Amino acid sequence: MAGAPATNKTAIKNVVTALAAAFGNRLVTSQAVREQHGNTLTWVANQPPDAVVFPQTTEDVQQIVRICAGHDVPIIPYGTGTSLEGHVNAPLGGVSIDFRDMNKVLAVHAEDLDCVIEPGVTRKALNEYLRDQGLFFPIDPGADASLGGMAATRASGTNAVRYGTMKDNVLAMKVVLANGELMTTARRAKKTAAGYDLTRLIVGSEGTLGVITELTLKLSGIPEATAAGVCPFPSVDAACNAAILTIQSGIPVARIELLDALQIKAVNAYSKLSLPEKPMLFVEFHGTDASVAEQSERFGAIATELGGGPFDWATKAEDRNRLWQARHDGYHAACQLRPGTSAFATDVCVPISRLAECVNATQAKTAELKLVAPILGHVGDGNFHLTMLVDMNDAAELERAKFLIGWLAELAVSMDGTCTGEHGVGQGKMKYLLAEHGAPALGAMAAIKRALDPQNIMNPGKIVTLA
Amino acid sequence: MAGAPATNKTAIKNVVTALAAAFGNRLVTSQAVREQHGNTLTWVANQPPDAVVFPQTTEDVQQIVRICAGHDVPIIPYGTGTSLEGHVNAPLGGVSIDFRDMNKVLAVHAEDLDCVIEPGVTRKALNEYLRDQGLFFPIDPGADASLGGMAATRASGTNAVRYGTMKDNVLAMKVVLANGELMTTARRAKKTAAGYDLTRLIVGSEGTLGVITELTLKLSGIPEATAAGVCPFPSVDAACNAAILTIQSGIPVARIELLDALQIKAVNAYSKLSLPEKPMLFVEFHGTDASVAEQSERFGAIATELGGGPFDWATKAEDRNRLWQARHDGYHAACQLRPGTSAFATDVCVPISRLAECVNATQAKTAELKLVAPILGHVGDGNFHLTMLVDMNDAAELERAKFLIGWLAELAVSMDGTCTGEHGVGQGKMKYLLAEHGAPALGAMAAIKRALDPQNIMNPGKIVTLA
Repeated sequence: MAGAPATNKTAIKNVVTALAAAFGNRLVTSQAVREQHGNTLTWVANQPPDAVVFPQTTEDVQQIVRICAGHDVPIIPYGTGTSLEGHVNAPLGGVSIDFRDMNKVLAVHAEDLDCVIEPGVTRKALNEYLRDQGLFFPIDPGADASLGGMAATRASGTNAVRYGTMKDNVLAMKVVLANGELMTTARRAKKTAAGYDLTRLIVGSEGTLGVITELTLKLSGIPEATAAGVCPFPSVDAACNAAILTIQSGIPVARIELLDALQIKAVNAYSKLSLPEKPMLFVEFHGTDASVAEQSERFGAIATELGGGPFDWATKAEDRNRLWQARHDGYHAACQLRPGTSAFATDVCVPISRLAECVNATQAKTAELKLVAPILGHVGDGNFHLTMLVDMNDAAELERAKFLIGWLAELAVSMDGTCTGEHGVGQGKMKYLLAEHGAPALGAMAAIKRALDPQNIMNPGKIVTLA
Repeated sequence: MAGAPATNKTAIKNVVTALAAAFGNRLVTSQAVREQHGNTLTWVANQPPDAVVFPQTTEDVQQIVRICAGHDVPIIPYGTGTSLEGHVNAPLGGVSIDFRDMNKVLAVHAEDLDCVIEPGVTRKALNEYLRDQGLFFPIDPGADASLGGMAATRASGTNAVRYGTMKDNVLAMKVVLANGELMTTARRAKKTAAGYDLTRLIVGSEGTLGVITELTLKLSGIPEATAAGVCPFPSVDAACNAAILTIQSGIPVARIELLDALQIKAVNAYSKLSLPEKPMLFVEFHGTDASVAEQSERFGAIATELGGGPFDWATKAEDRNRLWQARHDGYHAACQLRPGTSAFATDVCVPISRLAECVNATQAKTAELKLVAPILGHVGDGNFHLTMLVDMNDAAELERAKFLIGWLAELAVSMDGTCTGEHGVGQGKMKYLLAEHGAPALGAMAAIKRALDPQNIMNPGKIVTLA
């Protein structure tokens, strides 16, 4: 019952027949739909599933899993397909479960600051739904991802420095296990000491241990006041040191983002801004009018001390939105730096004290390799992204880009950091896990995988390889 | 290799001989020391280990585990023995590993706001060590517990509403697995998406999956300003509603503790205070001078709106310390309510919207059972403690107290809460896990336990029962 699942044609055919009987036209096998569900947003080849099914209930998902398990056929959960490391590819074939139709908000408990949702709800849809109640869900990875997918990949993003990542904001989940049983990971209490932390085990497991069919999420109150601004610095070091001092001083900054000079150049062109082409911090503060003013002032003093400035403060919502829209469009802006190329993003995270050194070394290595790759960083967490613009017709350039990803992963690990702060492992980062975690930890991950998925049918070929 | 470990006398004798040869007088088998290491702080009978060993290094721990594993002999990690649910008892005999001598702070990374320590460092010792650097470790369960034990039991306490629990403040650990291998759960990056969250799996696993030999902890800056105060309320409902509104308004309260009228009576007598004998909130705010003043003012407005007051504010450190010392002495104060009795603490945690209802029902049931049991609550988290003062010579009273614990656990679970918010499972709360988690989740916990500890030698008889 262990090892690679059978991907023989007969098993697939039997599964497709059974699913079609149960789900009718909610089971799709067209080439276009299958390829769309194997989309990787990387240079990893598209490996489409054999079929795509659209469940409407948890019971549907249990039925799908039981049918697949009965034939050793892989299952790949699918949210919006915005993951960046090949998480939704189907290297061994199988059935993609698309949560498009499981997109209801089931309950909002305003007094408890939580809500219960289906996994296909996207973060923007949830925030739209919550706005009237003065609440919001703070995790913002940029893309309008599904919340099931965000939990599965332990997503974070710009607000994480203040509000944490998905691991901090998922209270509980319902998860269909490989045997078709429905596991509830926890109840709605804000904290618990009642046994193993199944919630945190499932968050970040990328569908390899079970399929999430319901989430209970922590919510936050929409802050009374928000202030934002941008500040240029003479160097990456100065900007990083400003971020370190901000965090150390206990300023509860909501967002603190580094854009390197090249990224600013891209943003200026794309968003019609005229920011100085230097390393810049984009910052945002949440609180009351008075506390936001105080935080801004204190941050300003730190920035000045480190040679930063002049400040450009935006307390008006429209100015603020324009700035943050420009930040959020950073990826699209980067793409325009070299029209005709493909953009590939990678991310690492290091202790904040090593961040400037890591960013500087990355810029130098990028130049040495004659690559174009602006940098965007969630610097309060020591996390940054490198967006490589690669001419896919130039095989040598593509090889240099692949080399740079591996080089950066190894550099981050050598600095006591991680090969991925928020994009996840998927297919792309598996090869770096041994260096990062060591054999005993990887062995423990494999043992847990085998214990919960002895047939290896849950998104196989991601995170851990079973011997 | 599965099931209950062999506890035959020959195996124990062989292990003691091997440990004595390796550790000399750091291996102790005296009756007094063994009994002290089986101390449960509950009415669960003392079940002493067969021997106690005092390692000095991670390699020592690996050697101990390998010797025990070679003879199927259980291993029970021991910090300071302050756990409350029989975690350190040895129901199947075995070897207690006492971390008394592994008490060094190995590194403080002030820029990264983290430190690396051995598991025997206590929270007070760590904070003493850090004070000169303007840093502190915020988790405060009351007792001066070891940080290894606090991680193992997922401890929290008064500051958790603002700073989180141990799950939020442990970045990484070194853990000796059942096979003697040393696993590193994560690196020092503030966040990661690189595979299963082994850190959160070990936090709260109570020594049943491995033995913690090193911890990397998040630190916080000592706040520039602190304000604290006490406020009486006409009812438990009013006090709980004030807590809900405080959290909902986004006031970043650092501590918000409920003491019921009986607990206030106990505190007044013990700490020579003259607080009104009503439900009271003890609150504390951290921040800058201005933000602390603003938070206090806003909390005051909420309290007044709910019929609370008058306020007694203490901005002077000595007044504040006197109040919080009284709060921390709550357990000893409770004991004096009925001299000659024994005090037994239990805890539950519910969604905050159900807290008042849960506390009121608990007070009524306590009265109905003719028990004396003051209540203390970390109400920002929906978590509260019941301290039962039981005449151990009255068998009927003891039975009623045991009944009350089970009744309260079931009530909390029926309110979508947990049978323990912070004390953990140990031996005492195992019987409530099925109702709380359901069979699939308990099955997953057992599968994980079997996968990482196939011989069932790691603190067996706690959390999960293996069939």
